[in-house]
Amino acid sequence: MNKRMIAFFVGRVLRIEAFLMILPVAVSLFYREAEWITLAVTAVFSYLFGLALSFRKPKNMTFYTREGIMSVAFSWIFMSVFGAIPLWHAVDQIGFTDALFETISGFTTTGASILTEVESLPKGILFWRSFTHWVGGMGILVFVVALLPEAAGDSIYLMRAESPGPSVGKFVPKVKSTAKILYQIYIAITLAEIVALMITGMSVYDASVISFGTVGTGGFAVTNDGCMGFSAAQQWVITFFMIACGANFNVYFLIIARKFRDAFRSEEVIAYLSIYALITILVGINVRHSITGTGDLIRHSMFNVASVMTTTGFATVDFNLWPTFSKILMLVAMFIGGCAGSTAGGVKVSRVTIGIKTIHKEMEHFVHPRSVKIIKFEGKPVEHGVLRGINVYFHTYIAIFAASILLVALDGKDFTSTVTAVLATFNNIGPGLEMVGPTGNFSQFSPFAKYVLMFDMLAGRLELFPMLLLFMPRTWRRQK
Amino acid sequence: MNKRMIAFFVGRVLRIEAFLMILPVAVSLFYREAEWITLAVTAVFSYLFGLALSFRKPKNMTFYTREGIMSVAFSWIFMSVFGAIPLWHAVDQIGFTDALFETISGFTTTGASILTEVESLPKGILFWRSFTHWVGGMGILVFVVALLPEAAGDSIYLMRAESPGPSVGKFVPKVKSTAKILYQIYIAITLAEIVALMITGMSVYDASVISFGTVGTGGFAVTNDGCMGFSAAQQWVITFFMIACGANFNVYFLIIARKFRDAFRSEEVIAYLSIYALITILVGINVRHSITGTGDLIRHSMFNVASVMTTTGFATVDFNLWPTFSKILMLVAMFIGGCAGSTAGGVKVSRVTIGIKTIHKEMEHFVHPRSVKIIKFEGKPVEHGVLRGINVYFHTYIAIFAASILLVALDGKDFTSTVTAVLATFNNIGPGLEMVGPTGNFSQFSPFAKYVLMFDMLAGRLELFPMLLLFMPRTWRRQK
Repeated sequence: MNKRMIAFFVGRVLRIEAFLMILPVAVSLFYREAEWITLAVTAVFSYLFGLALSFRKPKNMTFYTREGIMSVAFSWIFMSVFGAIPLWHAVDQIGFTDALFETISGFTTTGASILTEVESLPKGILFWRSFTHWVGGMGILVFVVALLPEAAGDSIYLMRAESPGPSVGKFVPKVKSTAKILYQIYIAITLAEIVALMITGMSVYDASVISFGTVGTGGFAVTNDGCMGFSAAQQWVITFFMIACGANFNVYFLIIARKFRDAFRSEEVIAYLSIYALITILVGINVRHSITGTGDLIRHSMFNVASVMTTTGFATVDFNLWPTFSKILMLVAMFIGGCAGSTAGGVKVSRVTIGIKTIHKEMEHFVHPRSVKIIKFEGKPVEHGVLRGINVYFHTYIAIFAASILLVALDGKDFTSTVTAVLATFNNIGPGLEMVGPTGNFSQFSPFAKYVLMFDMLAGRLELFPMLLLFMPRTWRRQK
Repeated sequence: MNKRMIAFFVGRVLRIEAFLMILPVAVSLFYREAEWITLAVTAVFSYLFGLALSFRKPKNMTFYTREGIMSVAFSWIFMSVFGAIPLWHAVDQIGFTDALFETISGFTTTGASILTEVESLPKGILFWRSFTHWVGGMGILVFVVALLPEAAGDSIYLMRAESPGPSVGKFVPKVKSTAKILYQIYIAITLAEIVALMITGMSVYDASVISFGTVGTGGFAVTNDGCMGFSAAQQWVITFFMIACGANFNVYFLIIARKFRDAFRSEEVIAYLSIYALITILVGINVRHSITGTGDLIRHSMFNVASVMTTTGFATVDFNLWPTFSKILMLVAMFIGGCAGSTAGGVKVSRVTIGIKTIHKEMEHFVHPRSVKIIKFEGKPVEHGVLRGINVYFHTYIAIFAASILLVALDGKDFTSTVTAVLATFNNIGPGLEMVGPTGNFSQFSPFAKYVLMFDMLAGRLELFPMLLLFMPRTWRRQK
């Protein structure tokens, strides 16, 4: 394994993180808060550490899947460790484990919090906390690919390892151009939401923080009660952008390229919107007695289903109090998640769709053993390698899920809290049910359970394998 | 589709069921109970209906996978409907839905009960209730194959569709001989347990009923408190036989054939016993404070883990009161289940083992992309078709599981009860947690939820596809 090359990449990521921290420093200075120093010192420290790792280009630039995967895993761990420093230093009530939990939750766009109180936090710190969602949403290594000349060549490995979903398509032949276009779309959507929220009367600060949480499908908010206190118009704006950011970004690329027909034919997006609509209608019917007023019922159903399905984790009502049927529907939506190529977590609509097609094909085969049927997705036959990848993904998903629940269960919390805490972190959603429901938080878990959940958040965000390979002895063995 | 051939098979099954009912009729007569008439009339009715269906051999004896699968599905439904009549008629407190639930639970060796009180039931009826476990354990269609001359030829389809596990190996070239040997082993184990329990001081009646529940890994008992009132020696005997019946019956065949080396090298059985030992030790450590006395601790841990892992469902303690960690371990054991080719339910050890090997292989592939590794099981390479089958099985399992939970959740019972009720029926275990825990029962669900759970029991027992195909419109369409 080319360890120097991995170190070089991690160094680059830390240097970019340092630059990104300039924004919260500016916010902190604007509000005349003392914490600007904490943020600035962390930025400088992060830059210097990154410089030490990436000062010299490695002579051997060989870079394969293994190096790509390890670079992603280490980058996310290191940027979380450095990113946690401001929170750790500025918030009195928390230790480093909690600060790291909060930061990993931020970068992985989970939105699970150990904080019981956020309104009293310095604005610069709160800004950084939500900004991690935005940075993590698209993936920081895409930045490296987009901005740095030396990251050409085999950098598709990096994007593959960091991007949510079973396969990353290249819009344009060069990976670098793809990454740039993705970030342009991402920035445009973010600005659009900030402006929309400001029109509804929100301050530019609140609008920015909420937009980071929405566009990254993260879920950190500016107030203790999440989005419950917002006006109906504001909740509608957030609903719209949550749904938009759970869709495959390919669609926006196609729209920009004026390929409207292809854009509106995207099988994954159509499936995504159909599942969303179906679950929303079922939830709406089921909770109709607990929400008065048809307008409120529609808004709350649409908002909260969009929130869990895109794995954002905002809430306008405490859905932990909903009937069991709706709770299970919410869990199903959490499990499915958004589209591949979006910022959302979960198993992804494309995997679920292909999984269902596989079942259907096999049943056909039972009935007509001589029929040959090829599974198609987005109009193209699904390659054997992709199918195999999806099957392995499901096995691995279940294995990590079961192991995590067992480890977290050692804490002795109740059954529902334990199971949904793992589901909510592993799928990068944020809130679960009971103790970790929309009005609860994760602070009561033991440090051990918190580290398990941190692993789950990273594993969920990085599509399982980078984190798993990190803990496999064979990865570290010398190749013959 | 050759419908006449399916009807012919169902008819044969009903005629065999009629003969099997002679045993409970005899028991009922022995205890001078009036219910012998109910049982006898049902037997005659079942025989005549069966005769009507299978009086004449169909001219066209063509029999493919589709016919095999449909024969299995319909046979199990019809034999449950007829099997439910004695319970329905003899037990005052229950309607036909409940009687059918109890009978399907019996035949599928689930052991989930809607009865709150069993001790006052007539002995003949209680005997029949448990005898269904024994009949369902090995599969009634195997009887057809074993006993009837006309069932030669393509009857491997029947065994494949009815046998638990990913693949049915033939011990000997002829399917009929295999089926006969299986039943001989099965009868021998049952008799061994009856004798062992009688030595511990149990009456022949109780010993028989409990043995049917153990060997079929069903779980219906003779007393309201299950196995809690039994002596330590009796509990040890049951533990031994539960473990024995969760192992792949191939092993017993190999032992009979004096191939001891092959028998003790069975990868699946070794994995099965290792997982069992590991879970038992972890549970033992975890519950050490709630059970006094090391002997009791070992016995209760071994008994109850064996009971859920082999999906029997007996209990010596109320494990619903155990800590969350142990509860989750019990759920993991339920999910894994016993070996393929045993009477146990669950996903099966072989599928889990091959699943884990697939994950491992894929991770190897990440690290060494050029390495070619073949997945082996029991020393032989796993064929592509088997792997595909396992993958499809997992997808289908999750899909049915999610759909069932949603439908049962419409009842509005609590989260844990809803989820574990589906888990316990779908995996043919019996008790779940909370409302459906070891001391609870399924009577409080609505008729709709009960029918969903009945579907799950049959789908779980028949390895998903027969029941699923039954509800697929395409199955019923004419072939071009």
